[in-house]
Formats: sequence, structure tokens, C-alpha cells
Amino acid sequence: MRAAPGPEEVRRHNLGSLLQYVHLHGATSRAELTSRLGLNRSTIGALTAELTTAGLVSEAAPRETGRAGRPSLVVRPESSRVHAYALSIEVDRLRAARVGLGGCILDRRETGRPRGMPLLDTVQPLADFVHDMRRAVADDARTVGVGVAVVGRARHADGTVRLTSTIGSAEEPVGAALGAVLGAAGRVTVGNHADVSALVEHSRGVAVGCDNVVYLHGDIGIGAGIIAGGRRVAGYGGYGGEVGHMVVNPYGRECGCGSRGCWETEIGEYALLEHAGRAGETGREAVLGVVNGAMSGDRQAQFAVRQVGEWIGFGVGNLANIFNPEAVIFGGTLRDVYLVAAAQIRSRMNAIALPAAREHIRMRTPGLGNDAALIGAAELAFAHLLDDPLLG
Amino acid sequence: MRAAPGPEEVRRHNLGSLLQYVHLHGATSRAELTSRLGLNRSTIGALTAELTTAGLVSEAAPRETGRAGRPSLVVRPESSRVHAYALSIEVDRLRAARVGLGGCILDRRETGRPRGMPLLDTVQPLADFVHDMRRAVADDARTVGVGVAVVGRARHADGTVRLTSTIGSAEEPVGAALGAVLGAAGRVTVGNHADVSALVEHSRGVAVGCDNVVYLHGDIGIGAGIIAGGRRVAGYGGYGGEVGHMVVNPYGRECGCGSRGCWETEIGEYALLEHAGRAGETGREAVLGVVNGAMSGDRQAQFAVRQVGEWIGFGVGNLANIFNPEAVIFGGTLRDVYLVAAAQIRSRMNAIALPAAREHIRMRTPGLGNDAALIGAAELAFAHLLDDPLLG
Repeated sequence: MRAAPGPEEVRRHNLGSLLQYVHLHGATSRAELTSRLGLNRSTIGALTAELTTAGLVSEAAPRETGRAGRPSLVVRPESSRVHAYALSIEVDRLRAARVGLGGCILDRRETGRPRGMPLLDTVQPLADFVHDMRRAVADDARTVGVGVAVVGRARHADGTVRLTSTIGSAEEPVGAALGAVLGAAGRVTVGNHADVSALVEHSRGVAVGCDNVVYLHGDIGIGAGIIAGGRRVAGYGGYGGEVGHMVVNPYGRECGCGSRGCWETEIGEYALLEHAGRAGETGREAVLGVVNGAMSGDRQAQFAVRQVGEWIGFGVGNLANIFNPEAVIFGGTLRDVYLVAAAQIRSRMNAIALPAAREHIRMRTPGLGNDAALIGAAELAFAHLLDDPLLG
Repeated sequence: MRAAPGPEEVRRHNLGSLLQYVHLHGATSRAELTSRLGLNRSTIGALTAELTTAGLVSEAAPRETGRAGRPSLVVRPESSRVHAYALSIEVDRLRAARVGLGGCILDRRETGRPRGMPLLDTVQPLADFVHDMRRAVADDARTVGVGVAVVGRARHADGTVRLTSTIGSAEEPVGAALGAVLGAAGRVTVGNHADVSALVEHSRGVAVGCDNVVYLHGDIGIGAGIIAGGRRVAGYGGYGGEVGHMVVNPYGRECGCGSRGCWETEIGEYALLEHAGRAGETGREAVLGVVNGAMSGDRQAQFAVRQVGEWIGFGVGNLANIFNPEAVIFGGTLRDVYLVAAAQIRSRMNAIALPAAREHIRMRTPGLGNDAALIGAAELAFAHLLDDPLLG
């Protein structure tokens, strides 16, 4: 703030705040908006009218409240008229969704991704999904853009994805390639899978109200989206959060990155399946097989879960010492392992982390389940609209 | 920002910005302030007049510039009239300084701290230093407060210090105790030694312009002050940055915290001295003895430095993967070890960290040398003044 913002700037900011509020909280009465946003009733009325004209919200009388007096109108996001396309590029599957303003999934597609399929080869099937979903959209509907969550580090500025060893090792212009194919669907914004999941769990999932969050995503590799003081830990080039390559066991297995004993070599899919005597298998189904085996008493599966659980707790303990977080969220295959190994993970974490660093930690699975990355990807696209609802 | 700030709020903000600028950059011409702060000339003139009246800055004609035309007046902080007391509680010494606005040390005191001296027992000798320094201060000088840097995690809110195992294990109301003894010297603000060092190296040391910084302080233990996206990583309770208890060697030595193989057991003072065959010794002098021995060809000292250097690089590699920082700064005894083991630390770090995470890292020693913590502590006290120069 160098000089006072002008009335026009304030108005646009307030429009964004109101739209953001109903986007995150759904239908909200004018009375509640007045109190939540700290604005007076006439301002809320004017802002709502403007957003209604822009086709972004609608107003209606609420259902019977049982209270006396004229009820306050309810403002809701125009979820069916305003939407974003969300794409999720994962190790073993590709997903796409049409997500309405407000965060509801209106339509979705999914297909397997053969192991080793180059990143740029995912562009065409994803674009086909978008074209296909677009057919069902009404003529007056508005697409605000395309958000992409990708397993791999993404530079927001240009949508280039820099891959670590698990699925490649080069810079790939995914954002540009998708933009070229999807021209009509609007701006393409690319983010890391764990980062967008962390942000959306922070804004509308299990970490609402927590300003220090570690979101862990597991598959073959391990990635993290980390929020410190309410903001994402991105690092200089956007490549922060590579906790999968935190070395936890200097005498451990070789990692594809060239190092040895990286966390993902101890807690990723391969480690679990190897401990379970299923070294040839791969993918989420195989992981669930081990987890279910452990629950139904299979000794070797229990051993595998125990081994991996120990190392999960170990690494989480390290991250607790570094970040002093309030919430640690386990996504992807780590979610499945967490559900059978929670007590052990907690116990090992307690042994590693200092009491002051860990005493307020809540361990959770994603509130948005497997859709965290999809809805998080949509948020990348909605962010432009929420920044400036009349331009966006 | 919910409504536009009023003119009074804007004025106070601008006063703070101007004072902050000359506090960090020293004597600055009005012309440069005009351009740096994005305000017009008459506003700069009015703000300067107000700060001059408050006794916080002074103005003078510059030295001969060699340029034609009327030279722009130079604004400088009133370093000799406005000061803070800075206290630094370290493992083996206690330091105190009087620091002028602008960050210059005007006076200083130091004494040894016997190993094991309880934290609260440091209050009286530190207060004696302040009383002693106060005698030399002119009657019209103004003390803005007391800042304390302490090895141990501090809660800013109340100055309670929570100690980890190396020097104790309880919560100690250091801030309150100092406040009681130092009443007349003003508000006492307590921060962690590595945190305040990180912040001051970021604002006026080797990390100016770097928004992602890991500052490491070594003595018996290892602490970090971490800056991500320009802001300190504090964590939920302010206990983030305990990288000394990141476990790097699951098969390593027992740590005082109850865990095993914590980073500080591999790179702290004890490890270095033990590798050097000087296990009975302790303190910075002993560390310097090993470092100097290594430089002059002592084989065992070289072995010790190599061992510790390996583990320093190892942990820095982990932190690089997590934070993708631009700068890593080695303070305390780590500074001494870094100066003889830089190549090895870099090489080991390169083996652990992904290229994307580490490629922009500059490794440095503190720009403010051993005074980083003292000047950083003073900044805690100056922060209140800079927030609101007319109230603070």
C-alpha cells in the first residue's frame, strides 16, 4: 500500500471478496455476507446486483426460516452457468472434470495412463475429454479457464513442468501444449498435484483454519504441498516440497534420482509391494490389495504396512520439526496406508519430533477425497476470475 | 483490505515506510526517497519534517555532488539519539549491545556463560550490562525497547522460551523476567537466535533480495531460521525451524532429545571434537582449534572436518529439496567448518538435492558476521517503532 486505493479499486476488491465467499461457502444470506465481509447492507446489495448482472451469482428468497420479519435474500454461485475445466495428470491415470463455480463437479472423465507414457502424450486424451464434456454444456454457459494438476513440479508462469526421476527428467511445456489444443476453453494454468491439493484442503477441506499444513501425496513417488503461515512454500523456482527426495536412510535403496535412501524409496508404492512379496505388481489396486490383506490378517501384508508405516512416521517427524504444522494430510496411496497404520505412524512421529513441534498436529485424510487434486486444479482457473470478477 | 484506509492511516504507513527505508539503507537523498517509495516530493518533504520533529531522522545538505542545480537534502536516521538494547543469550556466552537506529552498534558487552547455567540466571548479568551501558547515554537519547535473541524457541507473544534438550527442557519466562528487571528500558521482545539472524541477513546482510533463505546456526545444537516467500517459517506455535532434530542417520548416535541420529549429533560441536580426538573439550575455541588444525595439515582434524562436512551437505541437500532456497547461510560454529569444507559440503549437497531444487543456491557466511544475532535482536525492538513511528 503506497497510496490509498481509489474507489474503483476498492469496489473490484470487494466484488472479488464477495464472490470468493460464496464460491467457498455456497449459498449465503445477504445478512451473513454483511457481517462476514464487514461491509454495510447497501454495499452488499450493490455488489450482489453487479455480480448478478455479470451472471456470476443469483439471488433468491430463502426457504422458510421460521423467524418473523422479512428474510434476507440468499446469494449463491452460478455453478451451472460458470465453470472451469480441471485436468489431473497422475502416474497411472488421467482425469478431467468440469467444475462449477462453488467447487462442485458437474461432469467427469477418467482413463488409465500406461506407465511410462510421456507427459506430452497425455495432452491429446485430456483435450478429447474436454471437447467431449463441452458438448453437454448449455450455450449460455461460461468457461473461465483450464486448471491442470500434474505429478511433477510446475512453473506457474508458463505451465512448464519439470519432472523428477519417477516419470521422466526433462522440462515439458504441458501448459503451452494444452493451450494450443484447447484454445477456446481459455487460459491454462498448471500446478503441482500436491500443491493444489494442499491449497484446496486449506480453503475448503480438512485444513480449513489451519495455517501450517503438510499435504503428502503418494504413488510411486512422494510429493508434498506445504503451507506455512497461510501461504504455499514454493521456493525460488517453484520447486519446493520435494520431500520424496529427503534422504531418510543413508544406507537405503538407490533412488531413481541418483541418490540413496530417499523417503519415497521407503514409503512409495514399490517399497510397500516389495515388503509384501508382490514386487512385480504396481498401481493403486495392488496397494489396496496389501492394505486389505493387512486388515484381514495376512502376516506379510501386515509386515509391509508396518515397515512402511515406520518410515512414514519417521519422515513426518522430520517435517514436524521443520514446520511445526497443525495438520498433516495423507493423500494418494499414503491415504490407504495411513488408514491401517495411523497409530504406528503417530507413535514413530512422536519419537522423532520434539514435543513443541508436534503437539498440535492433527493427522487426516483429504476432506475432498480423491477429488482434492481435481477441485484444486479448478481453483487455479477460478483464481483469475476471483481476482477480478468483471475482467477475469 | 475491506474498505479504503483513511488519510491518517495512509500517512502513518508512509511514515513507517520512510523510516524503515533510511533505517535499512542509511543516509538517503529526498530525491531517491521520492523514487523508491513512489511518493511525490511534497509528501516526502512533509513526512521527513514530521519524523525530524519526532527526533527520528535529521536532514542535511549532501557533500559536494559535482552536479549543477540545488542538491537534494539527505535524510539520515538519528542513530545516536534513538537506540535499542540488544541481548544475545548463547550456549557459551552472553552478549549485549546498544544499537542505534540504522543498525549500528554503539556500545557492547560480553561475558562467558558457564555451561549449564540456567536460562533465567542469565537475566541478571544481562540486565547489569544494560544498566552499565545506559550510564554513557545522553539525557535526550531515546530507548525504543529491548530485543533478545536466544538459542531456544521463543514465543513472540510473551517472550517465553521453550528449550530443547541441549540446554534444558522447560518453558522459561525470559521475556517477563527481563521486563521486570529492565522496566525503564521499554518493551522486551524475544526471538530465536537463528530466526532473528535469518531476518536481518535478509533485510541488510548477504541475503538481501533473496526471498527463500535457510540460515543455519551451529553450536552444541543446530537451529535454523527459514524464510520462504519473504516470510519466516514459524509454524503453529512458533516452533518451526528445529532442523537440528531432523533425523539424518537412523543408525546414528543418541540425541539428548530422546531420538537417535538427529542432524546435530552429526554436525554439532560434540561430533566435530569427537572425530578430532578432542572429545573432552568444548566451545568455540576448541572448534576453531580443529578447523585451524585441518588447514595446517593435521590429519585427524582433516578427518573430523570431512566427516562433519559430509553430514552438513547431506542435511542441506534435504532442506534444498524441501525449500528450493536461493541462499543457505552458515552461522556460529558452522561458519568455521564451512570455510574449510565448502567444496565438500557443496558436493554432498549436490548428490542429495534434485537439480531443480538446488541449482540457484548460493552458500554464504553471515554478512553481519557474529553480530547478526545482536543486530537481529535490535530489529525486534525497532519493529514496533517502524510499525508506527509516532506511537512506537
